[in-house]
Amino acid sequence: MEYDFSFQNPTRIHFGKHALEYLEPELNRFGPRVLLVYGGGSVKQTGLYETTLKLLKRSRKKISELSGVPSNPTASKVYEGISLAKKFEPDLILAVGGGSVIDCAKAVAAGALTHQDFWETFFLRKEKPMDAIPIGVILTMAGTGSEMNGGSVITHEESKRKTSMESGLLYPIFSILNPELTYTVPKEQMISGICDIISHILEVYMSPSDEDNLSDDLAEAILGNVIRSARRALKDPKDYTARSNLMWGATLGLNGLLEGSKRQDWMVHQIEHQIGAYTNCPHGLGLSAISANYYRLVCPHAEGRFFRFATNVWNIDLKGKTQTEVARLGIDALEAFFREMGACTSLRELGMDETSPIDEIANSCKRLRGGYLNFTHEQICKLLWDSL
Amino acid sequence: MEYDFSFQNPTRIHFGKHALEYLEPELNRFGPRVLLVYGGGSVKQTGLYETTLKLLKRSRKKISELSGVPSNPTASKVYEGISLAKKFEPDLILAVGGGSVIDCAKAVAAGALTHQDFWETFFLRKEKPMDAIPIGVILTMAGTGSEMNGGSVITHEESKRKTSMESGLLYPIFSILNPELTYTVPKEQMISGICDIISHILEVYMSPSDEDNLSDDLAEAILGNVIRSARRALKDPKDYTARSNLMWGATLGLNGLLEGSKRQDWMVHQIEHQIGAYTNCPHGLGLSAISANYYRLVCPHAEGRFFRFATNVWNIDLKGKTQTEVARLGIDALEAFFREMGACTSLRELGMDETSPIDEIANSCKRLRGGYLNFTHEQICKLLWDSL
Repeated sequence: MEYDFSFQNPTRIHFGKHALEYLEPELNRFGPRVLLVYGGGSVKQTGLYETTLKLLKRSRKKISELSGVPSNPTASKVYEGISLAKKFEPDLILAVGGGSVIDCAKAVAAGALTHQDFWETFFLRKEKPMDAIPIGVILTMAGTGSEMNGGSVITHEESKRKTSMESGLLYPIFSILNPELTYTVPKEQMISGICDIISHILEVYMSPSDEDNLSDDLAEAILGNVIRSARRALKDPKDYTARSNLMWGATLGLNGLLEGSKRQDWMVHQIEHQIGAYTNCPHGLGLSAISANYYRLVCPHAEGRFFRFATNVWNIDLKGKTQTEVARLGIDALEAFFREMGACTSLRELGMDETSPIDEIANSCKRLRGGYLNFTHEQICKLLWDSL
Repeated sequence: MEYDFSFQNPTRIHFGKHALEYLEPELNRFGPRVLLVYGGGSVKQTGLYETTLKLLKRSRKKISELSGVPSNPTASKVYEGISLAKKFEPDLILAVGGGSVIDCAKAVAAGALTHQDFWETFFLRKEKPMDAIPIGVILTMAGTGSEMNGGSVITHEESKRKTSMESGLLYPIFSILNPELTYTVPKEQMISGICDIISHILEVYMSPSDEDNLSDDLAEAILGNVIRSARRALKDPKDYTARSNLMWGATLGLNGLLEGSKRQDWMVHQIEHQIGAYTNCPHGLGLSAISANYYRLVCPHAEGRFFRFATNVWNIDLKGKTQTEVARLGIDALEAFFREMGACTSLRELGMDETSPIDEIANSCKRLRGGYLNFTHEQICKLLWDSL
């Protein structure tokens, strides 16, 4: 474990079929004013909105609502939330939804307590917030891991920039994780979430150091479970065992457990963010569309790592194959798994074509340092064209 | 993941070769009075005592000391610490050492803020403390995991009872983990620590449910790494890679990551605690002395679990073998590994014999519910005689 690290994760998790029973005791820890943040109509269709409202009222909370948070949450929605929060002055922001809703809630939580512009300050200049409104979460989707970390990703529509902020103040105080709430997630969103989980783990795993490191063993363990559980959940959306493993795997995949002792990559995420900023594609499907080609570029620079991935995650048969061949077969297996699930493995499937602003997307990527490889904008350009 | 759980672990970890640089900023978060807790002479021999004292003085701390904490920390040492702390009123208790020192510091931290008897109240009646003095840790040994949990195990000499308390208030605020500090740990202690790590993981792993559960995958990942790293560290005590993996594996092995979604067993620990209460044997060696025989008793009731252990952890070759045979070979492999390290695999090696109060030890075990099996005192008795 070559790299020194600090680790702290204070989020309180309530996990399981009865997790929502913890909402009231959690609410009692906070003052009376709750800003409820949610997305489109799904929480209303499933009844979760009604249930939450009932519990909030039973706890005698004053409620304000920020609704209609879109997937790929936008700066304009955050501005709307900040303006609401500045007037309402909530004691708690309760995010009910998936990663988009939580990320929007986080940006509002930090943005409402400053006179500065939230986007400029926290997302572009990467200044750390000095304060934030406490956040609670009722999670409805397995994917982003935002329920147990301090990160938020927001899309600024006008400047076509999708980027992140991170702060210790933005860890949810509590997150309620009932896997049953994911039964009704539309299939495409579910698949997108699974691609996101896998990508988070790979962004850490596909980076130095390559000496024996517990993080790599844990990453392989989570990957293996996620792959098995995804297959089960796609077959039977109400498979509780599969859904619970996916939900907890998503959380552990980006809660700091794996990251500390690794250099980390995050190029796939960065490039996808810019694809998303231009096309508003589902995040996870943007990731699956470019991942295999990205790793094919990196593979010659870290063959041992990809060999390990092929054998430990995909059980590629070694017989009669060179290390190079095995390493490449691991990437093929990843791509085949994305395809098997019904995820996109090309940008064309996301609706892009030769007329799309591919060079512009490539040039809008700001950071060029990967885990094993530093990139030029030309290389990112080539990657995107190859992934069309 | 059949069982619902709640999870929170607020401890801040600073890990790596330069982790001690975080001591001063951590100290600055607390008031001026620090109670320094440590064991015998080893922290003085290694220079860690001097270094810590220098950093405390540079932070202008008023220091009081509780020294001479024995392995298997005793109630009498805790009473000494409580009496000291009641007079000195520390703002922080800084534990410099391994699990024994930390566990003693925790008992003092809770006991100093109550007028009730700490042993009766927290350890026997299992009442939760209402308050505790904040704890910081500089860890010198990989084993107990006490650096990132709220547990403490204390031995009451007169009543020959060794048992635990647990409280959310007893999680160290910060723990400094520099693997280099474990280079000088005496070999027997190091081996004992490794047996303890393995046993913690097995206490959770060897229990229902047996459906697909991420906890089991993570347990196997940590076990595999610990086994590899132990072999390396025994060969070369200054192998940083091995030492860092052992240290982080020990921490993750008992910090709540694995426990939540499993029923858990803890019979091996409970029985060992009573062996320790009577014989003062090194904790980890008491565990290794009875583990294999304990699991041989359980195996017929959970053959699938032990088959999985044999294949996923020990890579037992399946060819021509029944499930029962494979399952048993996994337990044999565990015992062989203990022996390979030089750990005890019988109570005789701990100095016990036919004249030892074996029946008395068995009858002093209070809890009889295991992971797969409920025990009678007669069965525990037989286990101990078989392990002689």
